[in-house]
Amino acid sequence: MEEKPPVTVIAYSRDKFTSRKLSDVREALSIKGYDVVWINIDTVSLIRELKEALGIHEVLVRDFKRGSGRPGVRVFPDYLFVLLHQIYETEGGLKRERIGLLLRGNLVVTVQEIPGDVFDPIRESIREGEGLFRERGADYLLFALLEAIVQNYVPIIERISSKMEELEARILGRGDKTVLHRIHGIRREILFMRRTVFPLLEAFRKLQLEGEKFFAEDTKPCMEELHDHVMEVLEILEGQRELANSLVELYYSTISMKTNDIIRILTVVSTIFIPLTFITGLYGMNFRYMPELYWRYSYPAVLLLMLGIAVGMLAYFRRKGWI
Amino acid sequence: MEEKPPVTVIAYSRDKFTSRKLSDVREALSIKGYDVVWINIDTVSLIRELKEALGIHEVLVRDFKRGSGRPGVRVFPDYLFVLLHQIYETEGGLKRERIGLLLRGNLVVTVQEIPGDVFDPIRESIREGEGLFRERGADYLLFALLEAIVQNYVPIIERISSKMEELEARILGRGDKTVLHRIHGIRREILFMRRTVFPLLEAFRKLQLEGEKFFAEDTKPCMEELHDHVMEVLEILEGQRELANSLVELYYSTISMKTNDIIRILTVVSTIFIPLTFITGLYGMNFRYMPELYWRYSYPAVLLLMLGIAVGMLAYFRRKGWI
Amino acid sequence: MEEKPPVTVIAYSRDKFTSRKLSDVREALSIKGYDVVWINIDTVSLIRELKEALGIHEVLVRDFKRGSGRPGVRVFPDYLFVLLHQIYETEGGLKRERIGLLLRGNLVVTVQEIPGDVFDPIRESIREGEGLFRERGADYLLFALLEAIVQNYVPIIERISSKMEELEARILGRGDKTVLHRIHGIRREILFMRRTVFPLLEAFRKLQLEGEKFFAEDTKPCMEELHDHVMEVLEILEGQRELANSLVELYYSTISMKTNDIIRILTVVSTIFIPLTFITGLYGMNFRYMPELYWRYSYPAVLLLMLGIAVGMLAYFRRKGWI
Amino acid sequence: MEEKPPVTVIAYSRDKFTSRKLSDVREALSIKGYDVVWINIDTVSLIRELKEALGIHEVLVRDFKRGSGRPGVRVFPDYLFVLLHQIYETEGGLKRERIGLLLRGNLVVTVQEIPGDVFDPIRESIREGEGLFRERGADYLLFALLEAIVQNYVPIIERISSKMEELEARILGRGDKTVLHRIHGIRREILFMRRTVFPLLEAFRKLQLEGEKFFAEDTKPCMEELHDHVMEVLEILEGQRELANSLVELYYSTISMKTNDIIRILTVVSTIFIPLTFITGLYGMNFRYMPELYWRYSYPAVLLLMLGIAVGMLAYFRRKGWI
Amino acid sequence: MEEKPPVTVIAYSRDKFTSRKLSDVREALSIKGYDVVWINIDTVSLIRELKEALGIHEVLVRDFKRGSGRPGVRVFPDYLFVLLHQIYETEGGLKRERIGLLLRGNLVVTVQEIPGDVFDPIRESIREGEGLFRERGADYLLFALLEAIVQNYVPIIERISSKMEELEARILGRGDKTVLHRIHGIRREILFMRRTVFPLLEAFRKLQLEGEKFFAEDTKPCMEELHDHVMEVLEILEGQRELANSLVELYYSTISMKTNDIIRILTVVSTIFIPLTFITGLYGMNFRYMPELYWRYSYPAVLLLMLGIAVGMLAYFRRKGWI
Repeated sequence: MEEKPPVTVIAYSRDKFTSRKLSDVREALSIKGYDVVWINIDTVSLIRELKEALGIHEVLVRDFKRGSGRPGVRVFPDYLFVLLHQIYETEGGLKRERIGLLLRGNLVVTVQEIPGDVFDPIRESIREGEGLFRERGADYLLFALLEAIVQNYVPIIERISSKMEELEARILGRGDKTVLHRIHGIRREILFMRRTVFPLLEAFRKLQLEGEKFFAEDTKPCMEELHDHVMEVLEILEGQRELANSLVELYYSTISMKTNDIIRILTVVSTIFIPLTFITGLYGMNFRYMPELYWRYSYPAVLLLMLGIAVGMLAYFRRKGWI
Repeated sequence: MEEKPPVTVIAYSRDKFTSRKLSDVREALSIKGYDVVWINIDTVSLIRELKEALGIHEVLVRDFKRGSGRPGVRVFPDYLFVLLHQIYETEGGLKRERIGLLLRGNLVVTVQEIPGDVFDPIRESIREGEGLFRERGADYLLFALLEAIVQNYVPIIERISSKMEELEARILGRGDKTVLHRIHGIRREILFMRRTVFPLLEAFRKLQLEGEKFFAEDTKPCMEELHDHVMEVLEILEGQRELANSLVELYYSTISMKTNDIIRILTVVSTIFIPLTFITGLYGMNFRYMPELYWRYSYPAVLLLMLGIAVGMLAYFRRKGWI
Repeated sequence: MEEKPPVTVIAYSRDKFTSRKLSDVREALSIKGYDVVWINIDTVSLIRELKEALGIHEVLVRDFKRGSGRPGVRVFPDYLFVLLHQIYETEGGLKRERIGLLLRGNLVVTVQEIPGDVFDPIRESIREGEGLFRERGADYLLFALLEAIVQNYVPIIERISSKMEELEARILGRGDKTVLHRIHGIRREILFMRRTVFPLLEAFRKLQLEGEKFFAEDTKPCMEELHDHVMEVLEILEGQRELANSLVELYYSTISMKTNDIIRILTVVSTIFIPLTFITGLYGMNFRYMPELYWRYSYPAVLLLMLGIAVGMLAYFRRKGWI
Repeated sequence: MEEKPPVTVIAYSRDKFTSRKLSDVREALSIKGYDVVWINIDTVSLIRELKEALGIHEVLVRDFKRGSGRPGVRVFPDYLFVLLHQIYETEGGLKRERIGLLLRGNLVVTVQEIPGDVFDPIRESIREGEGLFRERGADYLLFALLEAIVQNYVPIIERISSKMEELEARILGRGDKTVLHRIHGIRREILFMRRTVFPLLEAFRKLQLEGEKFFAEDTKPCMEELHDHVMEVLEILEGQRELANSLVELYYSTISMKTNDIIRILTVVSTIFIPLTFITGLYGMNFRYMPELYWRYSYPAVLLLMLGIAVGMLAYFRRKGWI
Repeated sequence: MEEKPPVTVIAYSRDKFTSRKLSDVREALSIKGYDVVWINIDTVSLIRELKEALGIHEVLVRDFKRGSGRPGVRVFPDYLFVLLHQIYETEGGLKRERIGLLLRGNLVVTVQEIPGDVFDPIRESIREGEGLFRERGADYLLFALLEAIVQNYVPIIERISSKMEELEARILGRGDKTVLHRIHGIRREILFMRRTVFPLLEAFRKLQLEGEKFFAEDTKPCMEELHDHVMEVLEILEGQRELANSLVELYYSTISMKTNDIIRILTVVSTIFIPLTFITGLYGMNFRYMPELYWRYSYPAVLLLMLGIAVGMLAYFRRKGWI
């Protein structure tokens, strides 16, 4: 991070484009003569410098300095500020980093807690003159950046979905011990995603209402689309939450099915052999006066009796549907 | 799809009617001299062409190009756009396809992701002069198309209900292993339906409020009816969700009932025979000095004792209500 | 139904009263000279005829023609329409039939899907000059009719409550197999009632707000009362829902209690006799060189040992609280 | 009730106070010359008389005559009416009785379904000139009466809390059979309380908004306090509901723990002795040609073998953490 | 508490600062000539004295005198009052104490139920001239005090989170008996926190809306931040609630897993040995005419048979996945 200059400026008009890497915020702010100037800062450490250069409210600085920070929109008389989270999948689960976006006149400033590539496609589009960037103002750029961040949540949500599908298959197949632990982990992820996305709903509604003056007539439907997109993501997350609960039930059911099978076998075997063993015990007693012991056909008769008992019980169990 | 021209135009006045199959959007738009012109496009590929011909906002194009797309209404100064889903039952479960409806003056444009027959009855009614189509304007046509799509959800919901009833009968009858898996599937379907229908509530409310100017006084109660219809569908879905949960419980109960029955039999048989077998073991011991072995009536006395124990236990179990 | 004329007209002023049975709607509408005219139609088949005679909106016709139809209020410039459900208890569970109520000037029209007696007490009161009917206008009649329908839900809800109490007693008493199935049925009924009553909340709020002009100052508190009444019914239903869930839990608990008791007995009996039986087996072995077999007091010593083991185990179990 | 006159009048100004017991409402209303007149009626039977004397709306009479009656506020042009419930703990559980409060000018009328002592402290305070009663108007008296009723709920809620704590201790201690039944009862009480208190929230909000004109500037913060108090009671009830659910889970857990313990013992004992008993059976067989039977050290060898098996199994179980 | 004077006054302007410890409220109020005067009172006993000195509404006194007291905001024409709770972790669980904050002109009064150190960092900052205190007015001080109290909740919530993580590890490791009891305790804490924090949401919204006039333009974004902070805390608490439920499930699963394992072992051992023991019993019978007993290879043949049965059963169990 030391080597790479932390400040990138992209400035463009309909027919002009420039892109520079700087290490100073003030230098970036001095660029003039373009329709839109986008300053991206890859480290939070310059936030105070930015505050002084732009004269923005201390609250914005605190949003970054506080441990966490809830996604939200703050509207001031001549600028607005959006705080969002970018989500990463790491070894230890999902992590999130803050991204701040500031819109003032023709200037857009983005501050990323750690350097990321979420804005790369937009940078590319502007450079190549693709899309509507060059025709629209800074408000459209802001929209596109917000949309890019929201769009970035989608693959993570899809990964959760496919994890759940895999788990469902595994539950129905074998149902090993780690399944519930993994569902627990997935729930935690869904919860994490939900807590990240949910405040956006309120934030983007506020953006539409209070930040109206910052948006051109043409950009307004885009903002509406953004709001819809968040709604959609949230609804998917709600669905995932219900499915995760449903998976837990499915899992318990396969477990209890298995236990039932085992108990059934135990019952059938025990219940058949226990009376038979009793009979053998009976004729294994050493009483002197047991006339049956000395009859000629006692043994085959007892064998037949035991066979009869066994067959009768099997028939009973079959009728009950236990075997 | 190649052979069939993707664009169908139906144009009608109170006393005129024409219907043409074309492959070009612009040609369709050039039809004049009718009170209402309805252009149906059976493929999303013409959406950009449509955008340029009508000068509509790019957001509408994106609604189709994005992977999913949430049902919703977008109101513009001189046109409005509704995005809905049509639901199909396929082998692999429920699938949904987008349908876009655009109303501008006397023009209604519908764009279907895949060619479908959901609008066929309306087409038929217009041709035959049935219903109120010929007397009313394009707004009434829009209402009828929306109502047709919503109405299309009903048989799928009814299918879910009858599946659940069948499952309930099966649970109470036998309770085989696949039941819970099927309930899981039904829940997924209910969730899917809910996610499709729920946004309509908001959409149609918006249509009534923001899209007011597009509707004649006479059509407004119809829009209200549409909203009520969606509410009704949603309430049925909510009920189905609760019933599905209730089914899971019912299922678990029959399972645990069965296990209980099995355990009871095991207990009764074991508990009766275990002490008896002990007694036989007792007199099967080979000690030299066991005076009972040499008494005359030991054997019948022991048999009587065992009978007494068995009868006593059976009586105890019966009193406890276990057999 | 053929014989009975489907149209009943009751017309009254402060000092006049007439009641006629007719088979034609138009004839009924021609009655003049009374402060309030109430036309009750006992069949849906005359709905179209009614539409044409009164010039009402087609939506109202559709509300009856559609399969179901959600309770609701529709307010038009010079009339308002309320759609409610009447609930019947039949062999196969709860059933519901639509009732439509229309208020226009001094005219109230009620349309019942099937002939019912829910309005009989009101008819009686008007005839006898009881209550405030004769002093008030058609709006008060409408209120009284709505109140009568809502009041009609109460005995059904009370029946559900008493069913649940009976079930609770039965669960705590014996807990037979049908209990859960019956709770399932009760839940379905509660759900059904809820789906019937819930939309009324919104409907009556709308009636108060949008239908304000149709009500005299004196009738407004009555409408408020109606709304409160529905709230009350809903709150009772919510409580019933929770109690039903609680009953399920209670039921499971008694079941698992029983299983526990059974398992406990099995354990105690098995655990005591299994070691004893092992000992008898030990001395039932036929080894030649088992010196104990030939000792004088082996047998009583072994008997004492076994007694000691049994007593020790019983003491252990008692200390553990298992017997 | 016959002997005690059902009507009590308390009238006071800053420097005057009178208190009378009457049996007629009209007589009570004729008292003049005081800043505040409070009429308390201890029976519902005088409600119609009251209606005629004061000219109040029939709805208020119906609120009392109807079987139940939901707590609520009704605001009329020159008076307002509050209906609340007082809760009693009886042998058969919680019971509730209605209390109606009417404020008109300097007059407060309270109607209690059964005579109660909930207002006694206020009566005492007025008599003694304590608190602010003598300095304030009838609106403050109304507030104090409402607050007294709400305050009356608190000990009942506290009783529920202490019952739950006692139950928790009992669950963790022994977990006898009646626990779940008692939790069921507590839930029913919580539900009952909730259904009584919940409508107050709406009622007091309405009182603040629509009844504003009835309250002096100084009394308004008191009304706000009342609303907060109800919120607080409701939040406690919600918490109790969750705790009750949590208790059920705790209970099930102790039950299943116990069953687990029992099953474990059964398993350990059975699993150890079953193979040993098999071995004794083996050498109890009467085959003529079993060479082991005649060896010198067979018996001690077999005893050693069995000891080895037993010890091995115990070690295995210990390693598994089952004993 | 006796020795320490209960009243602390901190008064400051941009360039002046004074701090005094007093025992009288009136003396504190007489301090003039500073931009901001902050009086902190460490005991509730002076509240009535404060009321008289400042002429504040009696409701504020009652908020402290009532047993509990719900967090909230009260806005009066020339002052506003905020009631919050401070949470302490004690041996017996979480406890809370009320803190009242009053803002009137340049005066801030804080009343703490018990002396606490939650405001110490602010006191320090003002003394050292850190932060913005000296540049801003009393409204900013109020904000900072509120923020300090809210910030104080965070470590307690984090402690709950780490307790849950520890529990999760323990559940997956051993799953001893106390786990569920501890989860029950954690839930109670979460509930407690929620009940403390939830009313703040409403309170701070009210502060923003109704208390607007008390705040300088610059302080308003800070109030917004406060509201966001509370939202964030609440969302974390909601997440914790879900995780606690999820933990309960995880716990039950490990328990039932263990029981399953035990039952499986029991079944396998029993099911294998029960038939074998039956066979030994068979040949232990004392019938005179059992020809097998006298055959030369009966014994090894029976041994082989038994081995075959055991191996066959083991194979069956393995195929079923039970061992």
